[in-house]
Amino acid sequence: MIGLERKVLVMKVTVNGRAMHYRTVDYGARDNVVRLIDQRLLPHQFKIVELRSFEQTAAAIRDMTVRGAGAIGATAAYGLAQGLRQFSGKNQAEFDLWTQRVYDTLKSTRPTAVDLVNAMDQVRARMQTGRTVAERKALAMAAARAFAEEQVNQCRAIGEHGARLIRSGTRILTHCNAGWLAFVDVGSATAPFYAAQERGIKFHVFCDETRPRLQGAALTAWELYQQGISHQVIADNAAGHLMQRGEIDLVIVGSDRVVARTGEIANKIGTYTKAVLAARHRIPFYVAIPLSTIDWELRNGRQIPIEERDQEEVLGAWGAADNGRRQWVRTANPGSSACNPAFDVTPPELVTGIITPVGIFKPGELWGKRRKLGIQNAVK
Amino acid sequence: MIGLERKVLVMKVTVNGRAMHYRTVDYGARDNVVRLIDQRLLPHQFKIVELRSFEQTAAAIRDMTVRGAGAIGATAAYGLAQGLRQFSGKNQAEFDLWTQRVYDTLKSTRPTAVDLVNAMDQVRARMQTGRTVAERKALAMAAARAFAEEQVNQCRAIGEHGARLIRSGTRILTHCNAGWLAFVDVGSATAPFYAAQERGIKFHVFCDETRPRLQGAALTAWELYQQGISHQVIADNAAGHLMQRGEIDLVIVGSDRVVARTGEIANKIGTYTKAVLAARHRIPFYVAIPLSTIDWELRNGRQIPIEERDQEEVLGAWGAADNGRRQWVRTANPGSSACNPAFDVTPPELVTGIITPVGIFKPGELWGKRRKLGIQNAVK
Repeated sequence: MIGLERKVLVMKVTVNGRAMHYRTVDYGARDNVVRLIDQRLLPHQFKIVELRSFEQTAAAIRDMTVRGAGAIGATAAYGLAQGLRQFSGKNQAEFDLWTQRVYDTLKSTRPTAVDLVNAMDQVRARMQTGRTVAERKALAMAAARAFAEEQVNQCRAIGEHGARLIRSGTRILTHCNAGWLAFVDVGSATAPFYAAQERGIKFHVFCDETRPRLQGAALTAWELYQQGISHQVIADNAAGHLMQRGEIDLVIVGSDRVVARTGEIANKIGTYTKAVLAARHRIPFYVAIPLSTIDWELRNGRQIPIEERDQEEVLGAWGAADNGRRQWVRTANPGSSACNPAFDVTPPELVTGIITPVGIFKPGELWGKRRKLGIQNAVK
Repeated sequence: MIGLERKVLVMKVTVNGRAMHYRTVDYGARDNVVRLIDQRLLPHQFKIVELRSFEQTAAAIRDMTVRGAGAIGATAAYGLAQGLRQFSGKNQAEFDLWTQRVYDTLKSTRPTAVDLVNAMDQVRARMQTGRTVAERKALAMAAARAFAEEQVNQCRAIGEHGARLIRSGTRILTHCNAGWLAFVDVGSATAPFYAAQERGIKFHVFCDETRPRLQGAALTAWELYQQGISHQVIADNAAGHLMQRGEIDLVIVGSDRVVARTGEIANKIGTYTKAVLAARHRIPFYVAIPLSTIDWELRNGRQIPIEERDQEEVLGAWGAADNGRRQWVRTANPGSSACNPAFDVTPPELVTGIITPVGIFKPGELWGKRRKLGIQNAVK
């Protein structure tokens, strides 16, 4: 449908009974269009939005049509290249001004999203060798494509390493959505699932629904359903009980930031709780990440800013009404307020291993393996 | 409003700007009417329903107008006495048949609710000394009232013992609703809050929203709001992070069943998780219960049947739409299924103490204190 024949794609979506392959973020060169799966409508509606200018692409990042660090990074990289192609003219100085304008517009969409800036910086660095406006435009586009491809390749490599943890009958717990929807394709925490499935291994996934934003119930369950992987949604309260009964063998989650110096893991609120429970029940607890998630600069996890989000997320829930319309309902007492920390930090002693594209490491090994893990690219 | 002047009431509800006192379950002798707060409508609407026959009372138990073990027990006790008053005639044999019919009708509403049967058995035992139909009716009514009063007195006594744990500034976590709505008045886990408030102590309560049924967000938050106690709703995922940051000093929860022989605690799903987290952070974890919650018969917690409830509870959420109408929305991927265990069992080593009407005990002390804790009444 979107003409992605050349690419190796994992994501499979069945629309009107027809199975098709997509990427969360893609680009059509002929029309200079960025294409996204509209994540605000999932799981109730599958819709590809076509963004025909960098202004539209910036708006889509801002309004959360796209979410997930990897997916946002790729969208920004494509958006920058897209914006440069919108420039008509050959004047180098005017092109530089235009480039800055496109960059700033995209950067302003999510002030705290590090991946967004890193992705655009990579595109901008690689276009500098071009001598004409046309050359720079072409280099920017190639760099954006390379960024997306590199991310997919890293996710596939995570899958290859992580799939070794999954055997026939393994019952896996995951939290939030670190799936293909959070990246260009494949995902991080889900990568071992898809790799194991390719090898014909049958296993089962428990998806924490992941209040307050319910990414597990809405997005991870949707992904696994589309891929035909056996799964069940559980309330965040249920994992401890399932572990007690011996019904969970393995935990794999993603991460928003791994502190290389200490091995601490920042991830969606509730991750720490699952790690504590897993340790008590001696269940292996793994974190799957691309290399861009490793933070080589922070001294420790206390330096990670924990975003406190809108109370309304906790005081209500988004879902689909009987008529299929997306709707918010207030679940809590109307006069009450809420406390809504969005992330937590898991200490290294609770983490069995970190699954990266270049192998599985103990949290305490990261700093020592900094050459292998690519610190030279990561540190500015 | 309901003419409860003689009773000491904790529950305070502000309706149309006027503060009034209620019981969750009450009885009006003049009209032979059982009155309940309709818990299905909370927190969005406060409504008292008047049940004018035992058939209506049975329907209200069945459709969950009333919930919570203590509240269901009192409703059944009143419903039995109400039904006996509906009998017109003086024939003893006919009256006995009628009594059995009322009893069976009420019992059938919730086949697994132990409190319901225990409460009616107590009423029936106490009416046996009556020699005429009229005497038996009067004794049944007195027994139902005594059952409700005894429950309130036990809850108040829990409060007196538990309030000693609360100091100025104490930040308390509670899970689900073990409040006045789950009893006739005062509640079990909330009893120490209300007793501390009476003593002028200022403290703060974090209410786990308690997915999937959200009793914490909907009911406990409503109670605390009505009572003017400082509180915030949190996602079930957030408690671990708050403990990590040193923002929780004390946990108090209720219980559906405490196994006297082992000190194991059955309670709403997620309780075990909070106990594991509290133990890791050396935060005191208390369970507040009336004596009827102690199970003197089971040999251990593995014998507690864990109810697996309807998947729909996990796949969606009830709330109020913008127009105030109560509405269910599907939050999870439509094709996915869910696993929904409703309770879990917390081992005694994670429990600091059990707050009872006759004092605070270690879980391991219960069996040794069986005379003090009333085993003679509890064992059939």
